[in-house]
Amino acid sequence: MCQPKAGFFALPKNINMPAISQRGQVCPPSPIRKLVPFSDEAKKRGIKVYHLNIGQPDIETPANVLDKIRHTDLKVIEYSHSAGILSYRKKLAIYYQRVGIHVTPDEMIVTTGGSEGILFAMLTCLNPGDEIIIPEPFYANYNGFAVSAGIVVKPIESYIENGFGLPPISAFEQAITPKTKAIMICNPNNPTGYLYSKEELELLRDIVKKHDLYLFSDEVYREFCYDGKQHYSVMNLEGIDQNVVLLDSISKRYSACGVRIGVMISRNKAVMSTAMKFAQARLSPPTFGQIAGEEAVDTPPEYLEKVLKEYVLRRNIVVESINRMEGCFCPNPGGAFYAVARLPIDDSDKFCQWLLEDFNYQGQTVMLAPATGFYSTKGRGKNEVRISYVLCLTDLKAAMKCLEEALKVYPGRKK
Amino acid sequence: MCQPKAGFFALPKNINMPAISQRGQVCPPSPIRKLVPFSDEAKKRGIKVYHLNIGQPDIETPANVLDKIRHTDLKVIEYSHSAGILSYRKKLAIYYQRVGIHVTPDEMIVTTGGSEGILFAMLTCLNPGDEIIIPEPFYANYNGFAVSAGIVVKPIESYIENGFGLPPISAFEQAITPKTKAIMICNPNNPTGYLYSKEELELLRDIVKKHDLYLFSDEVYREFCYDGKQHYSVMNLEGIDQNVVLLDSISKRYSACGVRIGVMISRNKAVMSTAMKFAQARLSPPTFGQIAGEEAVDTPPEYLEKVLKEYVLRRNIVVESINRMEGCFCPNPGGAFYAVARLPIDDSDKFCQWLLEDFNYQGQTVMLAPATGFYSTKGRGKNEVRISYVLCLTDLKAAMKCLEEALKVYPGRKK
Repeated sequence: MCQPKAGFFALPKNINMPAISQRGQVCPPSPIRKLVPFSDEAKKRGIKVYHLNIGQPDIETPANVLDKIRHTDLKVIEYSHSAGILSYRKKLAIYYQRVGIHVTPDEMIVTTGGSEGILFAMLTCLNPGDEIIIPEPFYANYNGFAVSAGIVVKPIESYIENGFGLPPISAFEQAITPKTKAIMICNPNNPTGYLYSKEELELLRDIVKKHDLYLFSDEVYREFCYDGKQHYSVMNLEGIDQNVVLLDSISKRYSACGVRIGVMISRNKAVMSTAMKFAQARLSPPTFGQIAGEEAVDTPPEYLEKVLKEYVLRRNIVVESINRMEGCFCPNPGGAFYAVARLPIDDSDKFCQWLLEDFNYQGQTVMLAPATGFYSTKGRGKNEVRISYVLCLTDLKAAMKCLEEALKVYPGRKK
Repeated sequence: MCQPKAGFFALPKNINMPAISQRGQVCPPSPIRKLVPFSDEAKKRGIKVYHLNIGQPDIETPANVLDKIRHTDLKVIEYSHSAGILSYRKKLAIYYQRVGIHVTPDEMIVTTGGSEGILFAMLTCLNPGDEIIIPEPFYANYNGFAVSAGIVVKPIESYIENGFGLPPISAFEQAITPKTKAIMICNPNNPTGYLYSKEELELLRDIVKKHDLYLFSDEVYREFCYDGKQHYSVMNLEGIDQNVVLLDSISKRYSACGVRIGVMISRNKAVMSTAMKFAQARLSPPTFGQIAGEEAVDTPPEYLEKVLKEYVLRRNIVVESINRMEGCFCPNPGGAFYAVARLPIDDSDKFCQWLLEDFNYQGQTVMLAPATGFYSTKGRGKNEVRISYVLCLTDLKAAMKCLEEALKVYPGRKK
């Protein structure tokens, strides 16, 4: 078990107490957040830390959304419908229609962030001990939800050499056992930025259909596709309406991570009515977040156009900078705002901690997410890091300079 | 399985699809919300429905809290710390000190409603298959979290005859097996309104200590104690600091159910560091809710004093009205804003549905929560309902009149 030294994860010794659950012990700390105590310490020492570890953009939330919250005239902040405020779900249907996905308010449960939707989908569709196949590297927090739901993640490998494209169908077939109940993808991908093509998704559809599996698709980064590439949603794959569960969130689309509003969508009525029982148990998603979400659908299109242009510039800086560094490689991601880079290092966990504890370049350093936490296969990701290009160009350039200088002096550098 | 006819719980037939999980099938629908499709239908028919089914007060949220939200000057709605914004946790420590509970910000994780705290506590402290003892009737949604966490609720019976006081210690001792890992209480109690005395809690402490169990205490209604009675928190029971987990929420205290802000508190560092891993997986609690919560601590004391006076008047109307109705009995609750009443009916599920489907008195009816959903023991609660006295006096009186008239003509009335 990985037990960092500081902060919340410092465990007491020799205290008489009831045991902690096994799943609690097994649940991995978030690779995105587990180094926070070290960055806090660095800041206390006066070091400027560039946060490329977390998908928290510095992009402003749309002005109309912030304005809407400021002008709410609620007298009582009430629970909403457990599936979310109906007027918001109707508005969401309009948003989805706009991006070519045809769904009705009855096919949606508004969730507390995309996170809750993932948990609901797992609780609803899989029994404890059932298996879900996920191409790795994958969004590390899927592990937390899988542990919570008692299900087993079966990773299949994707590789940095081809930019982390969909693993071959044979890899899926080999991973399928009688316990396999679902496949999960994230498209565009976090952490790799890879955008799955329609052809890749159709191959997936065939497997899903052949083996009667659920297909969970996390499309939180749908709007972030670059270089003229188009996003294709699993909701439009023919013949698997009863298998598909779409998981989404407004966090990234409108740079509103703190509102904690996502949605779980499926045309499978049994899935939705079952998930609704879990949704009712927790009463409702946050009211202010839903108000924000409803307004966000009316955000002028220029907002997102501007944001996309900005992300392309940021991606280019990161990818070009890293590929210029000796011994480094970073594929060019087609979407999202992440990249996984291969670095000449012994151990990404050590390296990322070292960046915060023992390194600074002119009083600055960079915080990255060790890629190990995004792999289930032990040993993978040791020479890779995830980079979130969520800071302005000036900060990104400074952060890349820090990384470049750090790699020159890191004691665990490999040839 | 209970499968109401309308709305989200209508299941499709003969569709080829992967199976729904067993836990999804087993998870009971909320007795508080499962009849919503019927109340929606009644409203469509022009019937005025008094909602005494749900703990959604009509009391206004404090003006300073609403004002604070309106004056936020955020530019980016960011994720917060996974344990909650530090300034909010510091403020919470001040609130707890005020009510005689001494805790530090490090001993808190801000949760998405009290609900999430319950799930985190269960995931952290119990393995799948472990047992938790809960005096019944208990807050029905505990079932949903228990099913999610794969743990087994072992109810022990409390009785309407003595106002639902703590079951005798012998009942706890009899229920304890090698699988027992925790006891959970809600104080003051939802659904019964019963306020546990210090003496009762000390008896609980002795069992907890003797058998090395966790003690989860849901103290969401702490501030709602009547007739001069004082609340005593499990946090102040001596000698079981490592066993106690406090679950709380600001929903009821400040009539702000929609903010979805609660907190999980324990002095057990291993519990908190483990729960923190689940908290990190879901990133953070809602930002606006935390802003509201931080401001709420500064709400002038007159707010709560006024609210309490109002609830006493409401309680008196409900309890006195019901006890005047023939064949009915309602104990006088010492806290919270719920009461469980025994009615001369065959089946509370049928009765509550009938109230919405087939009854009205001068165009009005009342929505109640069947008590069956608050019991784990099959067959209990069939002649009981939970009443939330969350409406203004005029509405409450009208609702009581509806109930009185309904009982006169209900076809399933028992002698």
